Amino acid sequence: KRKRFDELVGGGSASSVNKEAFRRAVGNALERRMFITQSFSIYGGTAGLFDYGPPGCAVKSNIQDFWKRHFILEENMLEIEGPAVTPAPVLKASGHVERFTDLMVKDAGNGECHRADHLLEDVLKKMLANPLDGGKRKEIENVLARLDELGAQELGAQLKKYEVKAPDTNNEISDPFPFNLMFATSIGPRGDVQGYLRPETAQGIFVNFPQLLYYNGNKLPFAAAQLGQSFRNEISPQQGILRVREFTQGEIEHFVDPEHKDHPKFSRVADLEMLVFSREKQVSDVKRPVTMKLGDAVKSGIMDNETIAYFIGRVYTFMVAIGINPERMRFRQHLEHEMAHYAEDCWDCEVESSYGWIECVGIADRSAYDLKQHAAATNKEMGAWITFDKPKFVEELVVEPISKVLGKAFRKDAKTVVSALKTMTEENALKMKAELEKSGEANLKAFCDGGDFVIKKDMVKIERETKKVSGKFITPGVIEPSFGIGRILYCMFEHTYYVRESAEGEKEDDKKVVFKFTPLVAPTKCTVFPLLQKEEFNVVCRDVCNSLVDSGLSTIIDVTGTSIGRRYARTDELGVPFAVTVDHDTLEDNTVTLRERDTCSQVRIPISDLCATLKNLSSMKTKWEEVQAQYPSQGGSASAAKEENRTEATYSLRCP
Amino acid sequence: KRKRFDELVGGGSASSVNKEAFRRAVGNALERRMFITQSFSIYGGTAGLFDYGPPGCAVKSNIQDFWKRHFILEENMLEIEGPAVTPAPVLKASGHVERFTDLMVKDAGNGECHRADHLLEDVLKKMLANPLDGGKRKEIENVLARLDELGAQELGAQLKKYEVKAPDTNNEISDPFPFNLMFATSIGPRGDVQGYLRPETAQGIFVNFPQLLYYNGNKLPFAAAQLGQSFRNEISPQQGILRVREFTQGEIEHFVDPEHKDHPKFSRVADLEMLVFSREKQVSDVKRPVTMKLGDAVKSGIMDNETIAYFIGRVYTFMVAIGINPERMRFRQHLEHEMAHYAEDCWDCEVESSYGWIECVGIADRSAYDLKQHAAATNKEMGAWITFDKPKFVEELVVEPISKVLGKAFRKDAKTVVSALKTMTEENALKMKAELEKSGEANLKAFCDGGDFVIKKDMVKIERETKKVSGKFITPGVIEPSFGIGRILYCMFEHTYYVRESAEGEKEDDKKVVFKFTPLVAPTKCTVFPLLQKEEFNVVCRDVCNSLVDSGLSTIIDVTGTSIGRRYARTDELGVPFAVTVDHDTLEDNTVTLRERDTCSQVRIPISDLCATLKNLSSMKTKWEEVQAQYPSQGGSASAAKEENRTEATYSLRCP
Repeated sequence: KRKRFDELVGGGSASSVNKEAFRRAVGNALERRMFITQSFSIYGGTAGLFDYGPPGCAVKSNIQDFWKRHFILEENMLEIEGPAVTPAPVLKASGHVERFTDLMVKDAGNGECHRADHLLEDVLKKMLANPLDGGKRKEIENVLARLDELGAQELGAQLKKYEVKAPDTNNEISDPFPFNLMFATSIGPRGDVQGYLRPETAQGIFVNFPQLLYYNGNKLPFAAAQLGQSFRNEISPQQGILRVREFTQGEIEHFVDPEHKDHPKFSRVADLEMLVFSREKQVSDVKRPVTMKLGDAVKSGIMDNETIAYFIGRVYTFMVAIGINPERMRFRQHLEHEMAHYAEDCWDCEVESSYGWIECVGIADRSAYDLKQHAAATNKEMGAWITFDKPKFVEELVVEPISKVLGKAFRKDAKTVVSALKTMTEENALKMKAELEKSGEANLKAFCDGGDFVIKKDMVKIERETKKVSGKFITPGVIEPSFGIGRILYCMFEHTYYVRESAEGEKEDDKKVVFKFTPLVAPTKCTVFPLLQKEEFNVVCRDVCNSLVDSGLSTIIDVTGTSIGRRYARTDELGVPFAVTVDHDTLEDNTVTLRERDTCSQVRIPISDLCATLKNLSSMKTKWEEVQAQYPSQGGSASAAKEENRTEATYSLRCP
Repeated sequence: KRKRFDELVGGGSASSVNKEAFRRAVGNALERRMFITQSFSIYGGTAGLFDYGPPGCAVKSNIQDFWKRHFILEENMLEIEGPAVTPAPVLKASGHVERFTDLMVKDAGNGECHRADHLLEDVLKKMLANPLDGGKRKEIENVLARLDELGAQELGAQLKKYEVKAPDTNNEISDPFPFNLMFATSIGPRGDVQGYLRPETAQGIFVNFPQLLYYNGNKLPFAAAQLGQSFRNEISPQQGILRVREFTQGEIEHFVDPEHKDHPKFSRVADLEMLVFSREKQVSDVKRPVTMKLGDAVKSGIMDNETIAYFIGRVYTFMVAIGINPERMRFRQHLEHEMAHYAEDCWDCEVESSYGWIECVGIADRSAYDLKQHAAATNKEMGAWITFDKPKFVEELVVEPISKVLGKAFRKDAKTVVSALKTMTEENALKMKAELEKSGEANLKAFCDGGDFVIKKDMVKIERETKKVSGKFITPGVIEPSFGIGRILYCMFEHTYYVRESAEGEKEDDKKVVFKFTPLVAPTKCTVFPLLQKEEFNVVCRDVCNSLVDSGLSTIIDVTGTSIGRRYARTDELGVPFAVTVDHDTLEDNTVTLRERDTCSQVRIPISDLCATLKNLSSMKTKWEEVQAQYPSQGGSASAAKEENRTEATYSLRCP
């Protein structure tokens, strides 16, 4: 079992060369079919900005729709949509203006900017690739392990120590200094209202908390969600769409009574098994995740509470449904130093890609931090009333000045005395009560700043009373699952990419790329072909295509004159799961061939059944095997079969 | 017929007070149920920025999904999604850096900024409201009519002439000067790369034209579309969500051979009838739109071509499907001065609201302007090869230097001579041919800058030849339907709002607000209630609700203890079209009551039929009348009927 895992995560056999070749092949396919392209490429492109072309857009849209259904609809969340342009005070309160920074160094020669930690990392990794004595190696490994803990000063010292120079130019570099990653702008025509593009969608939810709570009938817990663009002015964006300057984020804020983090639906996910990489395992010698049930993770205390574990379960099912390989996905707990000071627990859903393990979703227990920050900044209530299951009875000391007696005794000073009595600390009130009981009177100035007044026993009642308390006012805790849609998308592309092996006699270039998208996320559900380029076939194709489109199924038609095998290959590269072919028999008996992409198996199906069948296949209500069981299978001709090269092949790492 | 129209558009009876009361009532309902709220309200709010709360978000999402289906899927468009952050050169080429401005004046006292034309408009309109002599009135009406044609200088002169002061302060104002409406920012850490937030989504499509053309198999026509956020730093945003600083835009760019603007699917819309407000009618004395078929509009030349008319038809069906009242929607042609200099024709889909006629969609023939601008800025090909239906045969003058003879005669100068001969103008070549035929020789320098060489008859062949030309390279024309999603949404809210009349004995405050959203756009399709607060009812309610949610229907459950009438009213205010009630009979026979929002009529339906029935009702495949015909109607009890107050009422203007 362990062996298998090694193979899967590429720790063992897959070399970095292999990974890079694989990454390039996937990248080529994505660009060739316009899934993703560099933005503004006719202007030379802008680093960190990407466009989704038609199939990329469709895949992204399908994933987002499913996200909304899986989380917002099925978990009954409150969705909001706010602007990206955000006035500065909001992001001051959230801490972004002060702390949303990366450490940067400047090339002393040409002024080029670099991320300080990346420069150090590159140099140290190169050193490790060469022979080194054991002590040195250990030292460097230590620095690398602590890289993201280093502050400006310590990082500067390390850059000096290892004599790091600017890449490309080999110039001297400046000391590291913090660079704020927010895009700044100005709101309104006067130019005096500072604004930023939001660096996350979360704050737009927090600032709406009072209204959302009201919308929810003033009841906790509830979750709100926002899906939209976030902006981070990365110092030097790399790794394709994994680190970009504008990206789609989906964030959920689950507001909960911090003392009740159990979850009513937890039992539904308790038996889900997944790779769990706890803090403890990360600092142990083994450093390996463990397959574990969520129920056990909570029971053993590895996961802090049912709510965070429930969301981990929902994230797991989401990721698997859209095509992430569960054996290449793990939930890694943050180490202490990784977490913000206010965070109580934090887990990343990491997916293995050719770039290594990529954080795709973060699931953090942020405590009441954000709400408290905004409450302090605005002086607004950001809390909720919690009604106890049963009323509680609490003892309380009540100080009741007897106004009538005090008024008679002190006249115009009575008011001062009453106020002083009422504001005494509990401790002083108890002391005065003792004094009054002992000697019948007490001087006020001995117990508070009330002045020189002698208080008699009949002037004040000081008693312990039992009060019924039905609830309390709290600032809710927040559990936040935060999704990077682009990262999830890219990892899914890598996990679904494979290449059919070339048939004998074919050239290497004829390798056929396939994306085995799940029908749920496939950009196009079905392609319709005429077997031959004949107008009587084309007419039927158009009818079939129109009827599928009318029922909401994304369908394309390909009536070009190339061979059927080549046309199949073209749609495979777009990840189209199903293809319909209209042939001579269609004109006789109104049946067509329906082909499934990955098995290349075909059935013969009446046109009248096509729409319903494809809808059920696309929404994953029906499996292909069930369709195969229902309709006669159709063997392609020998030549067609050859042309399609049914044998699948692993391209480099471990696909499919 | 004309009378009815007057009533509909509010030209006659509806006073402005009435309109304002209506607008306030709609606004209150939208805010109370958190359809739309001011952004960052706990921080005092930011003008021109709004949040969509849960039901607003759902309605918007439904409209956007339908937009994608109606246009992208059904018209087979290429969707793209690009970033909002845009480098300056792109927006320089498009003209936005120089010309995307509004004229602004500053309050000389406090520096407050105002839109110059709005100030003048307000003052002039106030003058018109008072008695004026006929000449003066005419003069002012003239200025108002030409308001958006005025440049900075003329506008400044008018502001002086009418002694316009700053509002509120009555201070002097500055001369008008242009203010660029783009939000500026800086890309990357160096601070030297100027960027803007895109002011429209269109440019993101244009810069991808070469790749999109390739994606489409290098064939014209095709359309590309982008739906996303655009940003305009309005000087003083007003009118709620009609004029905002960040908004969702859906833009379609239909690229077409400018000489072939017919449309293959035009016949499908040719018989659609709608209110058409041509340029001619606007400048005539009547100034009134005319109900017209699209086919006739094209035939009579009112609309320039089939493609622009086809899109007008598709916009019409889109707007009606989402709940816009077709009698309060018109297509208005731009006057000459309204159009950009490059535009060939332009129509606005305007919808009548309490703010007047609002431009919700613009449909413009932008010619090849944008592509040519980007081609010039980048020196990249932004054209397409058009294959003629039949090859054309064109006469061409061919100059063929006879290298062998020239080489012998001129040796090292031969190259210069060949080049000179080849680059002669057609006119000069013909003159030389005449000279050669007349005298047998000609001096090159007489015909071009080729130097002093005597050319003999056998040294060059100059002949007219007929060439077969199969196509040509063109820069496509662009027809652009551009949608403001927020504006459409707001107008739809106004068109679907109404109030049920209070029953006898009820207070005025008990007026029941209803949004009669079409099932397509309704934020929630169904609410499930127990008739009474009993656990055995609640269990069934939860089961029903879960099964509806599982099948993708947005459903909420309301088990609070308030009366059924009050619970119905709550869902009416959210525009939920259908409600299911579980009662005693349900426990006996597994049937429930299904109620339709606007008629308040009810049927008795088996739980097992509920899911399919509601899916068909929600996707508008089935009409309520059909459901009524299929299932026994269920009269509410007399008291329930009374509590619901079946009688509908027009609130102020003309709703429903």
